[in-house]
Amino acid sequence: MHPLWVALPLCLALCIPLQAEIYTALSELEELLETESVLLRTLHQYISDQEHRILLLKKHAEDYEKEHSIASRDVTNYLSNPINDYLLVKRLTSDWHKTEKLMQDPHYETAMRNLTQYRELLKFPTDEDLTGAATALIRLQDTYKLDTASVARGELNGIQYSTQLSAGDCFELGRQSYNGQDFYHTELWMNEALTRHEQERSNSTVRWEILEYLAYSTFMQGNLKKSIRFNY
Amino acid sequence: MHPLWVALPLCLALCIPLQAEIYTALSELEELLETESVLLRTLHQYISDQEHRILLLKKHAEDYEKEHSIASRDVTNYLSNPINDYLLVKRLTSDWHKTEKLMQDPHYETAMRNLTQYRELLKFPTDEDLTGAATALIRLQDTYKLDTASVARGELNGIQYSTQLSAGDCFELGRQSYNGQDFYHTELWMNEALTRHEQERSNSTVRWEILEYLAYSTFMQGNLKKSIRFNY
Repeated sequence: MHPLWVALPLCLALCIPLQAEIYTALSELEELLETESVLLRTLHQYISDQEHRILLLKKHAEDYEKEHSIASRDVTNYLSNPINDYLLVKRLTSDWHKTEKLMQDPHYETAMRNLTQYRELLKFPTDEDLTGAATALIRLQDTYKLDTASVARGELNGIQYSTQLSAGDCFELGRQSYNGQDFYHTELWMNEALTRHEQERSNSTVRWEILEYLAYSTFMQGNLKKSIRFNY
Repeated sequence: MHPLWVALPLCLALCIPLQAEIYTALSELEELLETESVLLRTLHQYISDQEHRILLLKKHAEDYEKEHSIASRDVTNYLSNPINDYLLVKRLTSDWHKTEKLMQDPHYETAMRNLTQYRELLKFPTDEDLTGAATALIRLQDTYKLDTASVARGELNGIQYSTQLSAGDCFELGRQSYNGQDFYHTELWMNEALTRHEQERSNSTVRWEILEYLAYSTFMQGNLKKSIRFNY
């Protein structure tokens, strides 16, 4: 383990506001990992329920489509048969009621009910905890004069210690800095978010939002020329 | 075209109650086919929106899973890194908010709003129309002494004129007869529904429901012995 990480608990105890200290104890962070594993199980169950529901809806669509295309081939002949007339009226009444019921997704309510229970039983971090964790990381960056791009790569002195940050992770660090009126770090992290946004395929961020933060934070630091550039 | 089908409009005009006559005109039945094609487009769009949503949720689950499994390999080492701590808290706050929002399916509301508009603009049959269409078919069966199994196969004198009826289609004819207190035809069509239920893979009907209708309709016709058999 890198000496910097070993020294971290002391550093955190000295630097981070009280609200963020909740999760400095290892045991409490471990509880968050347990929460995450429960959320993951819920999410997987929800996805599997949805896939089953979509499969049933596809079967409905296929059945309608099959009969509808037979009818379309020779409408007059099809509709002169009372069995077909009954089937057509049935498709648009009792069959369609069932389809609409299936579109109403009962699994969302179940998942939300479970999640409400978990929120009472498990440890869940709040938005304030997120602010605390972001502030802790940015203070560490300052104290050890860490380069933003390196931190974003999860690197220290060229060695990778954690997963790379996504554009969204960098954006959140910029947004947290902005909320704390720290426009210097807003600019640093939004710049990093922009670089990563251009490289990423899955867009976890929105380009114009990053540019808005960049324009405002550079303006607030008195760099009007740079600020105007971000507006175009 | 079979002469029976040619003679049908006259037969319908003589036999079917007023409420069912709405859809004896070919042009009106054609309008129902148009309604069906609009509903089909809505259903296909809804399914495609859902598939896209599920794909995004799977991407979320994959991202959580990837980081969570790295953490699980060596919890202490993972949590002693402040970048990881920030990422963990972020996953359980801002990332999870986005996941929950995606679970809340915005497409259902859109589809329902469209369907409400269609109900104002297009011709939609009512439950009474379904009763009318079912009654017309059953009266035709009586007038021409048609065998239930043959009608269910869409056959007349051994020639197939329409799609086969499913267990659900037969069940609906039985249910409509039951609602009209016509227990003789309830028994005929529920028996056919039961036969087809045993053969079908996709269960459009529920066995015990069919048996309940059979028990009650045979009882009401005075066949207590048969009725008891359906209860076991």
